[in-house]
Amino acid sequence: MTLTQPAFSAADHAFMARALRLAERGAWTTKPNPMVGCVLVRGDEVVGEGWHRRAGDAHAEVHALRAAGDRARGATAYVTLEPCAHTGRTGPCAEALVEAGVSRVVAAMRDPFPEVSGKGFERLRAAGIAVESGLMETQARELNRGFLSRVERGRPWVRVKLATSLDGRTALANGESKWISGEASRRDVQQWRARSSAILTGAGTVLADDPQLTVRLDEGSTGDVPDFVAPLRVVLDPGLATVARGRVREGDAPTLYVHAPDAKPPRGLSAQVASVPVKAGRFDLDAVLRLLAERHQINEVQVESGATLAGALLAAQRVDEVLLYVAPVLLGAQARPLFSGLDVNTMAERLQLSLVETRQLGGDTRLLLRPAAVAAG
Amino acid sequence: MTLTQPAFSAADHAFMARALRLAERGAWTTKPNPMVGCVLVRGDEVVGEGWHRRAGDAHAEVHALRAAGDRARGATAYVTLEPCAHTGRTGPCAEALVEAGVSRVVAAMRDPFPEVSGKGFERLRAAGIAVESGLMETQARELNRGFLSRVERGRPWVRVKLATSLDGRTALANGESKWISGEASRRDVQQWRARSSAILTGAGTVLADDPQLTVRLDEGSTGDVPDFVAPLRVVLDPGLATVARGRVREGDAPTLYVHAPDAKPPRGLSAQVASVPVKAGRFDLDAVLRLLAERHQINEVQVESGATLAGALLAAQRVDEVLLYVAPVLLGAQARPLFSGLDVNTMAERLQLSLVETRQLGGDTRLLLRPAAVAAG
Repeated sequence: MTLTQPAFSAADHAFMARALRLAERGAWTTKPNPMVGCVLVRGDEVVGEGWHRRAGDAHAEVHALRAAGDRARGATAYVTLEPCAHTGRTGPCAEALVEAGVSRVVAAMRDPFPEVSGKGFERLRAAGIAVESGLMETQARELNRGFLSRVERGRPWVRVKLATSLDGRTALANGESKWISGEASRRDVQQWRARSSAILTGAGTVLADDPQLTVRLDEGSTGDVPDFVAPLRVVLDPGLATVARGRVREGDAPTLYVHAPDAKPPRGLSAQVASVPVKAGRFDLDAVLRLLAERHQINEVQVESGATLAGALLAAQRVDEVLLYVAPVLLGAQARPLFSGLDVNTMAERLQLSLVETRQLGGDTRLLLRPAAVAAG
Repeated sequence: MTLTQPAFSAADHAFMARALRLAERGAWTTKPNPMVGCVLVRGDEVVGEGWHRRAGDAHAEVHALRAAGDRARGATAYVTLEPCAHTGRTGPCAEALVEAGVSRVVAAMRDPFPEVSGKGFERLRAAGIAVESGLMETQARELNRGFLSRVERGRPWVRVKLATSLDGRTALANGESKWISGEASRRDVQQWRARSSAILTGAGTVLADDPQLTVRLDEGSTGDVPDFVAPLRVVLDPGLATVARGRVREGDAPTLYVHAPDAKPPRGLSAQVASVPVKAGRFDLDAVLRLLAERHQINEVQVESGATLAGALLAAQRVDEVLLYVAPVLLGAQARPLFSGLDVNTMAERLQLSLVETRQLGGDTRLLLRPAAVAAG
């Protein structure tokens, strides 16, 4: 917080918190767009609310203005992201706010695109509207951490999901892992899949488990969720050795095989393919992530793999968060470790994470963790 | 719950809950006696409260009766354990309740000693007092699980305390383990030590860490806690190879070395010693636990050891609860496991525990777990 930070009131915070909750409603449908929420307030009264549902559809501000009608005049608009000034698939929101006669705009954060950052605020100020930014920015960045990672870092936000025993094992020595975690945890995983733009796995997991990697909801098919954007299933398979395993191509979601340059995709394969450089038998992980961000506009990728891929991402410092389901079970010292290839010889070399959140799910404990540097940043 | 269970009122529950909280005040001082609390209520008014502070001192009922004076007449007494009918170091409490003119006694549970169980109730009923038992019995048994284990099973309640990384490691390959868990966790451990009758460790831990295993409190020395009963430090050391390591004999607490029959304690050793049979280089763990229960009246023993002793106790099904501090750190697959000697080849063979409680301590997560059978029993 800088000295020029405006002093926001408790009411300002409450309305922005509401706008953030509205924004979150788009978690399953706005991809690859950011989630945005808007609340219009005149006096103490909320006169309009809106959130961005789907790329190509109206933005949050437009929904809120429609709901408010004439009552938008003189109102304050709380928006979780700087209103756009450019005419994309929809008209510029800054212009719409000006036309509606809004007198004050409070934003949680600026637009992250360098070319347009601040342009929306300029347009509003030029029309005599009071503009303030930075209210609950941390929460707004947290909400759109996937979108921001893609835009600001050129790679998706990487979440590694793992189910582990108390003694840090993800599978028995023979590879068996069904089921370590309980039913409540496995249901919870589906919610995290649903907000992801992609689910990433390795050839080893496809061979061992033949997973489908689709989103399965208690409340029924994702086909019944209007505008649901199914996460892209991504299989890292250098030699395309797993294409005979078909479940990862079943169901209502696209599939992408990432293979080594010398592998030849078989004819008639009902999936997308992409070639990525391999060094010493291992994919260039940064190239994989760049591919996902640039070509497929992936915001959040959820890694559901074995210890090898998870360990490689960790060693490359490309893990942004670890979603760990700890089951109250012991699998013994012969079972498979959580991460492979992590070489710690002294306490100073240990990999420190920060605990973001814990939750009890049936008999399991869910931990959300981030590498200490990421958490601090 | 059986059909003959009396229907206790909400007020009954509230007063018994109060009696249980009072009882718990004795956690650091009543050993080897059980913790007991008593609340005397006339109408809606609490007229006397008491708890058992120290073996040999007055029982909870006597303290409560003293506080109530004449107001005990016609009152209900809520006691967490059946009042005693025998004259031990103090007079029988059942008699005192009769003399004071109490009209109803509600107990959480019967006395666990087979010879006297029910005798207190009989004495009260003979005097025309209404007696009910079983209110919040689960909580009362939980409170005195150490005492009950010793009396009913002839062995202490065994709590294994471990600090682990997310990947289930308690130490690096070189044995280094300072510190995996954070300061809040290490402070918390002291509270669990304080309620234990004994702290058990192995020769390996003494050699590697030279621990003192005393109770260290933030608020100062345990010498400043009136009537504090320092836990007995117990070192399992077949050949008495660690007696040169002196810290486990330092400080204000007794120490016991358990050795193999063929080992000869050195002259002038400032500690107690006991010989226990060894089979194939390993102590007979049941003999160790029997020794602690019978000769040393140990209710709860807290195991603070390496993976070998912890694993041996687990394999022998002699672990009643696991107190696990999970630190947000990764130590890698070369580091030492949580339990040694646990051999799980199929999912059916996995060791299932039940999560009793979780708590966040700084960046760490504390899990209290019990083997599924113990938790259900």
